[in-house]
Amino acid sequence: MSKVILKGGTIWTADSVYVADIFIQDGIIKTIGQDIQYQADEVIDLAGKIVMPGGVDVHTHLDAPVGETTTIDDFASGTVAAACGGTTTIVDFATQQKNQGLVETVEMWHEKAADKAVIDYGFHISVTDLYEGSMTDLGKVVDSGVTSFKIFMDYPDTLMLDDGEIFRVLQAGGRYGAKVCVHASNGKVIDRIAEDLVYQGKTGPEGHLLSRPPATEVEAVNRAIAISRMADAPLYFVHLSTEGAAYALAEAKDHEWPVDGETCTHYLTLDKELYFKPDFEGAKAVLTPPLAGEKDRDALWKGLRTGSLSIVSSDHCPFCFEQKKIGIDDFRRIPNGGSGIEHRIQLMYADGVVAGRLTPQQFVDIVSTAPAKAFGMYPQKGQIAIGSDADITVIDPDGVTKISAETHNMRTDYSLWEGWERAGRIVRVFSRGEEIVRDGVYVGAAGRGSYLKRRTI
Amino acid sequence: MSKVILKGGTIWTADSVYVADIFIQDGIIKTIGQDIQYQADEVIDLAGKIVMPGGVDVHTHLDAPVGETTTIDDFASGTVAAACGGTTTIVDFATQQKNQGLVETVEMWHEKAADKAVIDYGFHISVTDLYEGSMTDLGKVVDSGVTSFKIFMDYPDTLMLDDGEIFRVLQAGGRYGAKVCVHASNGKVIDRIAEDLVYQGKTGPEGHLLSRPPATEVEAVNRAIAISRMADAPLYFVHLSTEGAAYALAEAKDHEWPVDGETCTHYLTLDKELYFKPDFEGAKAVLTPPLAGEKDRDALWKGLRTGSLSIVSSDHCPFCFEQKKIGIDDFRRIPNGGSGIEHRIQLMYADGVVAGRLTPQQFVDIVSTAPAKAFGMYPQKGQIAIGSDADITVIDPDGVTKISAETHNMRTDYSLWEGWERAGRIVRVFSRGEEIVRDGVYVGAAGRGSYLKRRTI
Amino acid sequence: MSKVILKGGTIWTADSVYVADIFIQDGIIKTIGQDIQYQADEVIDLAGKIVMPGGVDVHTHLDAPVGETTTIDDFASGTVAAACGGTTTIVDFATQQKNQGLVETVEMWHEKAADKAVIDYGFHISVTDLYEGSMTDLGKVVDSGVTSFKIFMDYPDTLMLDDGEIFRVLQAGGRYGAKVCVHASNGKVIDRIAEDLVYQGKTGPEGHLLSRPPATEVEAVNRAIAISRMADAPLYFVHLSTEGAAYALAEAKDHEWPVDGETCTHYLTLDKELYFKPDFEGAKAVLTPPLAGEKDRDALWKGLRTGSLSIVSSDHCPFCFEQKKIGIDDFRRIPNGGSGIEHRIQLMYADGVVAGRLTPQQFVDIVSTAPAKAFGMYPQKGQIAIGSDADITVIDPDGVTKISAETHNMRTDYSLWEGWERAGRIVRVFSRGEEIVRDGVYVGAAGRGSYLKRRTI
Amino acid sequence: MSKVILKGGTIWTADSVYVADIFIQDGIIKTIGQDIQYQADEVIDLAGKIVMPGGVDVHTHLDAPVGETTTIDDFASGTVAAACGGTTTIVDFATQQKNQGLVETVEMWHEKAADKAVIDYGFHISVTDLYEGSMTDLGKVVDSGVTSFKIFMDYPDTLMLDDGEIFRVLQAGGRYGAKVCVHASNGKVIDRIAEDLVYQGKTGPEGHLLSRPPATEVEAVNRAIAISRMADAPLYFVHLSTEGAAYALAEAKDHEWPVDGETCTHYLTLDKELYFKPDFEGAKAVLTPPLAGEKDRDALWKGLRTGSLSIVSSDHCPFCFEQKKIGIDDFRRIPNGGSGIEHRIQLMYADGVVAGRLTPQQFVDIVSTAPAKAFGMYPQKGQIAIGSDADITVIDPDGVTKISAETHNMRTDYSLWEGWERAGRIVRVFSRGEEIVRDGVYVGAAGRGSYLKRRTI
Repeated sequence: MSKVILKGGTIWTADSVYVADIFIQDGIIKTIGQDIQYQADEVIDLAGKIVMPGGVDVHTHLDAPVGETTTIDDFASGTVAAACGGTTTIVDFATQQKNQGLVETVEMWHEKAADKAVIDYGFHISVTDLYEGSMTDLGKVVDSGVTSFKIFMDYPDTLMLDDGEIFRVLQAGGRYGAKVCVHASNGKVIDRIAEDLVYQGKTGPEGHLLSRPPATEVEAVNRAIAISRMADAPLYFVHLSTEGAAYALAEAKDHEWPVDGETCTHYLTLDKELYFKPDFEGAKAVLTPPLAGEKDRDALWKGLRTGSLSIVSSDHCPFCFEQKKIGIDDFRRIPNGGSGIEHRIQLMYADGVVAGRLTPQQFVDIVSTAPAKAFGMYPQKGQIAIGSDADITVIDPDGVTKISAETHNMRTDYSLWEGWERAGRIVRVFSRGEEIVRDGVYVGAAGRGSYLKRRTI
Repeated sequence: MSKVILKGGTIWTADSVYVADIFIQDGIIKTIGQDIQYQADEVIDLAGKIVMPGGVDVHTHLDAPVGETTTIDDFASGTVAAACGGTTTIVDFATQQKNQGLVETVEMWHEKAADKAVIDYGFHISVTDLYEGSMTDLGKVVDSGVTSFKIFMDYPDTLMLDDGEIFRVLQAGGRYGAKVCVHASNGKVIDRIAEDLVYQGKTGPEGHLLSRPPATEVEAVNRAIAISRMADAPLYFVHLSTEGAAYALAEAKDHEWPVDGETCTHYLTLDKELYFKPDFEGAKAVLTPPLAGEKDRDALWKGLRTGSLSIVSSDHCPFCFEQKKIGIDDFRRIPNGGSGIEHRIQLMYADGVVAGRLTPQQFVDIVSTAPAKAFGMYPQKGQIAIGSDADITVIDPDGVTKISAETHNMRTDYSLWEGWERAGRIVRVFSRGEEIVRDGVYVGAAGRGSYLKRRTI
Repeated sequence: MSKVILKGGTIWTADSVYVADIFIQDGIIKTIGQDIQYQADEVIDLAGKIVMPGGVDVHTHLDAPVGETTTIDDFASGTVAAACGGTTTIVDFATQQKNQGLVETVEMWHEKAADKAVIDYGFHISVTDLYEGSMTDLGKVVDSGVTSFKIFMDYPDTLMLDDGEIFRVLQAGGRYGAKVCVHASNGKVIDRIAEDLVYQGKTGPEGHLLSRPPATEVEAVNRAIAISRMADAPLYFVHLSTEGAAYALAEAKDHEWPVDGETCTHYLTLDKELYFKPDFEGAKAVLTPPLAGEKDRDALWKGLRTGSLSIVSSDHCPFCFEQKKIGIDDFRRIPNGGSGIEHRIQLMYADGVVAGRLTPQQFVDIVSTAPAKAFGMYPQKGQIAIGSDADITVIDPDGVTKISAETHNMRTDYSLWEGWERAGRIVRVFSRGEEIVRDGVYVGAAGRGSYLKRRTI
Repeated sequence: MSKVILKGGTIWTADSVYVADIFIQDGIIKTIGQDIQYQADEVIDLAGKIVMPGGVDVHTHLDAPVGETTTIDDFASGTVAAACGGTTTIVDFATQQKNQGLVETVEMWHEKAADKAVIDYGFHISVTDLYEGSMTDLGKVVDSGVTSFKIFMDYPDTLMLDDGEIFRVLQAGGRYGAKVCVHASNGKVIDRIAEDLVYQGKTGPEGHLLSRPPATEVEAVNRAIAISRMADAPLYFVHLSTEGAAYALAEAKDHEWPVDGETCTHYLTLDKELYFKPDFEGAKAVLTPPLAGEKDRDALWKGLRTGSLSIVSSDHCPFCFEQKKIGIDDFRRIPNGGSGIEHRIQLMYADGVVAGRLTPQQFVDIVSTAPAKAFGMYPQKGQIAIGSDADITVIDPDGVTKISAETHNMRTDYSLWEGWERAGRIVRVFSRGEEIVRDGVYVGAAGRGSYLKRRTI
């Protein structure tokens, strides 16, 4: 039906950089070539622009109950923000509550997303409560296209599974071809350190940092790898933040163990000094694991270049400052999470490619191609190639982006990158061939996103 | 009062080998020299014999409740067997039951030992239940000379502490100068694997082996090291059995972390094939962790030579075959433990020194000097030097020892080394200058052992 | 001028696998798409066929003096064989003789290749003799498109440079943006071991194996890495054959040192047992380093998957059996080298992809894309993308290939893979849009190859 | 004949610390005990003093041709200084000149030492020129008690052997039971870097530092280990100075390879900043390898504690400042070497034990026991035990030592530790029972030292 030609842009893929036209028909990339002569409904000149596969963000928490509150972005506001930031696919975490069925959990998330999401979306299922028959239910969930599970080694009182339960979920992952995502921090030790800090009167946001030393992550990473090998199942680490974790993954990959991991925008760009800001401002940066220091950031960038880490996600888990104040007297009650679904691609482009830390190919891979491959969506998503969905993000390398809570599309009333000005501007975004963002403004229809039934591995 | 000269023996210490006389007065080594001219009540000719410091066995379970039964040797039979085997000091595990106080636990063990033990003895305290005030009680226990704690990462339903509790005990260890001993196996994962095996109908003794793959030990070792570093406390691993564990300790020592470890006689000399013997015979070898294979044994011997492991204990935890039969229908109910307090020195001499795996100095170190140093008893114990207790074991290198349940002094009705014949024979043993074993027979008084108040570190 | 459509093949690149048409104009890939409607001189149906970028072989020795003889394939026979085997680009080693100028050496190689080569070719320069002004001459050589140097740590009497000279060449590489290729074996030690073997009467071909234990390669690899870091210059290892070398590169890459390496077809597919064949047959396998065993082969395959190794070359260095007989009385005189330029792609396809050791993308990368990138030829060579040279190899996955000296196009009178039958058959090869091989027969013009001026790094 | 009792001192050995009397007869330790009642010619009260085995310095260069000059201490002045510093045994390097026989070299050194040395001495043989029959001569040299060889990987024009020759010497070491000592620096690369520096006009003493980056040592260490493993021979590294070297040895020891190493007093106590002192003062610190920085020093101390390094020697190679001036226009001509035979024990006591970096046992081991063991002199030397030579050094822990060229007994006219004041004072030294130093003054007879025929390993 619809025919569009994107003309003369510089195509960036995970493998190549070259100049070509892209011919799109009915939402699918049909032809790539020099000076394509086909007839089209629309020909869009992209000379001088960077044309890349739309971003794939595999770690978001929209409309999600967290601690004593709920994240402030729902699937409407969250996916509009994602789209404006060049992301055209998300995978959100459907999180089981204690005493809730797994199938029921996924259904609840379908309701949250349907008619609201403006880009394509899938779900992971977070398993927090094993019940009689839960392993069978995991199989049903996989059949419905939710082909990845998440387990927590943290938050003992609400979300954590013990090592035996983790082993069981990993076994199920191996059996069903589902990838198990791990939140790796030793929650039991963390709780004790936090207890000590509160006892010593250290109740402010910096307590969040101090109660979670890097070793609490590194230990859990090593333990999860060990258990996954006993269960003979592949593993994926969410939101890694430390040098020690990157090193552990490098070692595992040298041994060809099927282990993979992501870090997040904020770990690559922000410093732990934020926790020491006065007036409870530090609470804005309370997310888990906490921000680290320069040595860790350098190791994470290096990990992305050497392949020990392969994905950057946003871990978008947004709260307003008022929500953060739940923990004003005790950092343990501050809702954990930050908002960044909108800035992931921009910041990786600027602080990655422009700053010389990543090649264009590495950049495209970590924000789009690798996550699509890792979670059963490739080559439908994450690639500019014949037959792929025409999910395309266009960057003007001569543009400039200034980040501010006043202008961003997320509902949070602050930004961790407030005032940052960076080279490059996302000027157009296409989802299945349809232009949904122009000049930074969402111009698509409401609720146009589709559920993505993902493949097993 | 009493004056004895041990004449012309070849003295083996952890540092040297040389020929000399030893002059003992009132149970203390007073003089070492060539051709000592002092007057003595007795002069014992030891020409051609090996004269070494009496063995120090820091891992025994005498008169100890284990699972659904109790170990078969009490402090009388157990220490007589120890003495006959050349061991003159033991440190036994006083194990807290759930809902039992720590001070009370130690008192109970004093009662078990008093008037029964024939050699000097100390206690570790196994902490299995943290209660309000338990950390304060640990301080009291330390003050009474029980300067080491043990924690379990295994047996979730009875003995295991969670990682946060382990952190607390380690903090206490650091604060009080007490060494924390760790039983490192991931009990939660083991229980799940065992559950699977029983579900598959594999209920025999080999299930014990199969449910405890080496990675369950290695993971726990790495985790314990990580937690001890967060708690800033020294650590001691009991009964290590795998190459991976030896490697983890080597790495920790290269970093100068205060980590140390023991292996046991059976891991160095016996093979896992024992679990596959017919007629439930495999149950005799059910001890934890299970026996491993040749690769692991080689790594353990190597670890003793390179110093990643520094001690060999017996982990004497004796049961009769009848007791083992509690688990005839389910290997999980077989009482875990083996008996070997009597053969540790003999086997390390024969399979270590005679077989060329250890130097004489290494041998003396791992069975006597190093354990005395590690647990606050050196140089009173574990050394032949001026001022040390005259605890001395004499080996006839030309003698031969044949091991059999029919002849051993332990109460177990089988031996894991039944029929083994080895070079070397322990011919005399002195405890505080008093000859208590002659020609393999206990000749000392009943209940002559003293409680050893150990130093902190 | 010429317009060709390759219709409906399954395109394999280093990044993707998808079905599409390729439109080629004047030797360049102009368009890739579904159902391309352009007019063309020729439309070739490739449905069901694998369509991949033509192979790039960066390690050949054509018409090359080696020891007391000369390789048997010249640029005519060698490149015809390469083409028939699906390789469309080679980089050959121009090897300086003692007392020969570097510029003169390259000129000599231009003469050897011109009007003979049937595919595109470039040169490396092997530096064996540093003279006054040689570093300046290296600059001239680089300007002419020879942007990589080779140095030998082997063959002390003829080719080897000492560590100081290696340092100098590496400095020049860093300064000029040229990659330094290293033949890593400790020649001085090898010569002594060989001397001992001959002294002991072991003069047969197996002496070649025995005189070159794996450690002679591993040591040299580690030394070269150390020197390159002191010279601050990138490094490329030719013909790696051992687990230890793969491990050293993995470690270097984890540190982001600019080190890369190749292995060769024969190390991945053949065993050292060949050296023990009777009747001097072992001499046929005398190439350097020698073939290794299964453990090494596994490590090399693993290295290709994990990225510690990134390229497979042929190290085509062909001799007839008669030439090998120069060393009939002393293995040290056997010309070192094997012939395999024709079978590299076939064997990597069969023993890599079909055997499940490599993904299609990995296969394409290691035989075509990665070598083109590593040596300044990408994306002109090594890629199927808009703007690239239409160098394309077509494999029939349903075909079968049988290797034999009787049928191969190389001039060698034996094959190391004699009688091997493997799945897959190379049915068509295109060079710059021109079909030069059909059904395994060279159908292009003589001497049609062009010199490739390569880029610096 | 003579009978002496050393009364009530605190005996420090490599294994223990205890208070006892020592009875010496005819130069041999006969008895150790509490309150020894034997009759003696002399009873010396050492209450409150530290009594340790006399120091063993296995790396000295007395009366030795180096570059264009000769070391300023001969066997008379050098051994008097050693004795005053608490060292009672040295092993000096007999260095072969090109075209000189090995047997002849050792004879020459016997002439240098005889009737001059005041303490017992042995020789290593430095092999710098392999000739027809040199391997046989090495056997003769070993038979004469010179049971260790040294080879240089440095100084290409004068002393260096190539890797093949090193292999040959290692083979001989393995065959004869002689330990091969290695000077590990990549001399070929160093010469090129030095060449560059001089070309750039950097001719001052700091050029010595800059031309020898740490990697030149680390590379050579790894290479030597690799070659020794191929030759199946044990190895000893002299004068290690870098973290990388300590790490390489730790790794080798974890693998039980027979590799051992020393560092020297100056690497543990002095900083590379000395090279930047004005007025050619930096030349005083020109020794090889050069002094390093804090990170390396920390690693060397750590290496001594963890056992990767086991010995501290002086590498006494003394020159007057006037001799250093040979290199005033070109650092390459500055004679390499420093003087420190007199301060090794004092500085290791103060900066090791008093500063809390070493235990008393570790201190005694690294300066006395370990070198005696490593080079075939134990337990005759390096131990306080029955039957050992009564070589004994007495330290007053309440004394203070001030180092100055004005007061030291070495002939050098400067001290690298000028003005240092340290706790502890060496008050008495006994050699074979004879008191040769009292209150810091040599009181023994001239030329009283004996040649030590050392054992093989």
